[in-house]
Amino acid sequence: MSQPTRAPLMVLDDALAQLLAAAIPTLPTESVPTFEADGRVLATPLTSVLHVPPQDNSSMDGYAVRRADLASASADAPVSLPVAQRIAAGHAGTALQAGTVARIFTGAPVPEGADAIVMQEDVAVAEAVTNGMPTASFKAAPPAGAWIRRAGEDVTRGAQVLAAGQRLGPAELGLAASLGLAELTVARRPRVALFSTGDELVMPGTVPPEAMPPGAIYNSNRFFLRALLTRLGCEVSDLGIVPDQRAATLAALADAARTHDLILTSGGVSVGEEDHIKPAVQQLGSLALWQIAMKPGKPFAYGTVRHAEGGATGAAHFIGLPGNPVSSFMTFLLLVRPFLLRLQGVTDVACPVQALPAHFEVTKADKRREFLRVRRNTAGGLDLFANQSSAVLTSAVWGDGVVDIPAGSTIAHGDVLRFLSFADLMG
Amino acid sequence: MSQPTRAPLMVLDDALAQLLAAAIPTLPTESVPTFEADGRVLATPLTSVLHVPPQDNSSMDGYAVRRADLASASADAPVSLPVAQRIAAGHAGTALQAGTVARIFTGAPVPEGADAIVMQEDVAVAEAVTNGMPTASFKAAPPAGAWIRRAGEDVTRGAQVLAAGQRLGPAELGLAASLGLAELTVARRPRVALFSTGDELVMPGTVPPEAMPPGAIYNSNRFFLRALLTRLGCEVSDLGIVPDQRAATLAALADAARTHDLILTSGGVSVGEEDHIKPAVQQLGSLALWQIAMKPGKPFAYGTVRHAEGGATGAAHFIGLPGNPVSSFMTFLLLVRPFLLRLQGVTDVACPVQALPAHFEVTKADKRREFLRVRRNTAGGLDLFANQSSAVLTSAVWGDGVVDIPAGSTIAHGDVLRFLSFADLMG
Repeated sequence: MSQPTRAPLMVLDDALAQLLAAAIPTLPTESVPTFEADGRVLATPLTSVLHVPPQDNSSMDGYAVRRADLASASADAPVSLPVAQRIAAGHAGTALQAGTVARIFTGAPVPEGADAIVMQEDVAVAEAVTNGMPTASFKAAPPAGAWIRRAGEDVTRGAQVLAAGQRLGPAELGLAASLGLAELTVARRPRVALFSTGDELVMPGTVPPEAMPPGAIYNSNRFFLRALLTRLGCEVSDLGIVPDQRAATLAALADAARTHDLILTSGGVSVGEEDHIKPAVQQLGSLALWQIAMKPGKPFAYGTVRHAEGGATGAAHFIGLPGNPVSSFMTFLLLVRPFLLRLQGVTDVACPVQALPAHFEVTKADKRREFLRVRRNTAGGLDLFANQSSAVLTSAVWGDGVVDIPAGSTIAHGDVLRFLSFADLMG
Repeated sequence: MSQPTRAPLMVLDDALAQLLAAAIPTLPTESVPTFEADGRVLATPLTSVLHVPPQDNSSMDGYAVRRADLASASADAPVSLPVAQRIAAGHAGTALQAGTVARIFTGAPVPEGADAIVMQEDVAVAEAVTNGMPTASFKAAPPAGAWIRRAGEDVTRGAQVLAAGQRLGPAELGLAASLGLAELTVARRPRVALFSTGDELVMPGTVPPEAMPPGAIYNSNRFFLRALLTRLGCEVSDLGIVPDQRAATLAALADAARTHDLILTSGGVSVGEEDHIKPAVQQLGSLALWQIAMKPGKPFAYGTVRHAEGGATGAAHFIGLPGNPVSSFMTFLLLVRPFLLRLQGVTDVACPVQALPAHFEVTKADKRREFLRVRRNTAGGLDLFANQSSAVLTSAVWGDGVVDIPAGSTIAHGDVLRFLSFADLMG
């Protein structure tokens, strides 16, 4: 009996490139209320049908004036003019007559004829002097256009304000609303079927700790995977543990493929592991078992599961994650997350990288590219979590991100590392 | 007629300190399924009732051995031993007899008597030689404890794994699940009543752009405010536009205070602005109008709205944001976000700061502390959005964060700035 042949390790960037090439964005589009669109991905570019602001308006509380009226004004010889109208935000004034000024508030339209705003702090106002109108006194002529926001200054009618493939967050929803858009066209949520595999897995709540059989561990992967998928805009069906008979596994996979875009499993993808899912995926479609040169997270599987519905055929994507919690967590963040974003049409799926100094040392190099869990400290550096075990998520709870260490590298105190924050990787 | 007295500007840090002092975490607690707890805040510390791993187990696919049996093994004189048992993850083996080894897989319990694991790559296996059992051949004795993960190595029984006040994310849910916890005790979601104020505001979808009256603008603040509140774990009641009669405003506020923890408005808090909400809040409780020395975002109000229900009395918090979209957005992120996290019991509410170089210049200093919208570029620096207008969210859509510029500062190319990422501020 010989050992299984060891496939050459695959470079992480190659694995990602293959996954992204497979993530062809063919999800149907749908219209959703702008109120409900946080986290969704825009399917068509947004072009503004209006100017923002719609007309010239004041960017200060103050007085709208005709500069010619104030040409002679100085501190020694202020010019006093009657306040002939009052224009609040949301109200249109009337044309400003020569020799008068208008009280005006932030956001209010600049009346016709006015060519500058003087802020209220620079104006002295006296009660009724001219025809029952208060009088405002100015010590200088303002520059042309002072405190006037021009129509279309922020957004010009016809300009594209959001591109297709833009992931929508609170600011994007606000911008779309400010253009009058109550609905947005987005990619349908990816439908993801989540399976777990592993004889040793017990669901929390079903067996108390003191009654756990030897070798049994609680299933934690489906908890964080469901939360991560939901944050990426997915609709998640948690289908539980993969059945342990071949026929039932085939039926469960075929059924999931009909109604989902992606079947995601954790566990059962190591070379030595035995389960029913690998042969079942192979029988229903195709499966590539990868050994990715990354730590944590070596084993990974990508494939497709075909289905036939009526006369139509199609295929769901299949991704198998390693069973170790931290391996599963990190391969999700580095591979499945960009895959699911691209599937929704997002172009730029890379995580921003920060350059931060190590406030720790690693004297033993690893053969694989390594993602160590670290935390930013108040001194502007990174601290390392002592226990980088991939079996439990304590390191990911303690840390606020990972550093991306090239294969074969040691780390000296002060080395500037590539830091990826969990806020960026999970947002 | 004199101008309104200008209150001295308040320092942002003082405003934040006052808000945090008011955010006493008195929300009731509740038990929620771990599956549903993403984004919630833990109300009681979590202590592990078990060891993780529960018993010594293998961290490799390989062979469990008694080192004494291999004391003489060398490359020239390998030692061959029968493979007497096979232990997969989730299954307990039997005690390892002297002179035998056990095939063992990653995660499987180490059998009694075994004191090291040899990884499969270092073992040659021949088919049935001894009593029908395959034979494994070893070229060296492994170090004591090799590839054995010790019971309790990751989490020790009795250790506190999560503190009260910890905000729960995917990793925390996974960790809690791995400890067998199907339910978690968390702070009840803050209930937030959202009002908008401003005569000029029109809801998107109700009036098409071409029919907008002069001075009217679309309401965008409630769109991003609702999304931001939801991301912070809040239950949001969108109560629409504040009524424009005093009596109706009083009734709406009193009613909202009875059933909410926070009443949040945008608009109507500038010194010069007229609306019914300021006098109504003052009549029902208390209101402080602040002029915060920050840009965008000067006007801000904090107060309380009392209510009496049955014999019980209480008060809801009141926060009034400025009406300008970017001012509203930034004051939410810098003041309301930490307030709402603290209200849920989170201790550390500060946003992480990154030190990044400016790849732009600002030659004109501002009197106020300024938060400029910027974007990280691929050269590791920050680019500035040209239009820092606070009237529309284009800058917040283009940018991926803000730089925090002290009052009175100019910026030269290369200056290292304090960068706050939107991913951190909105996560």
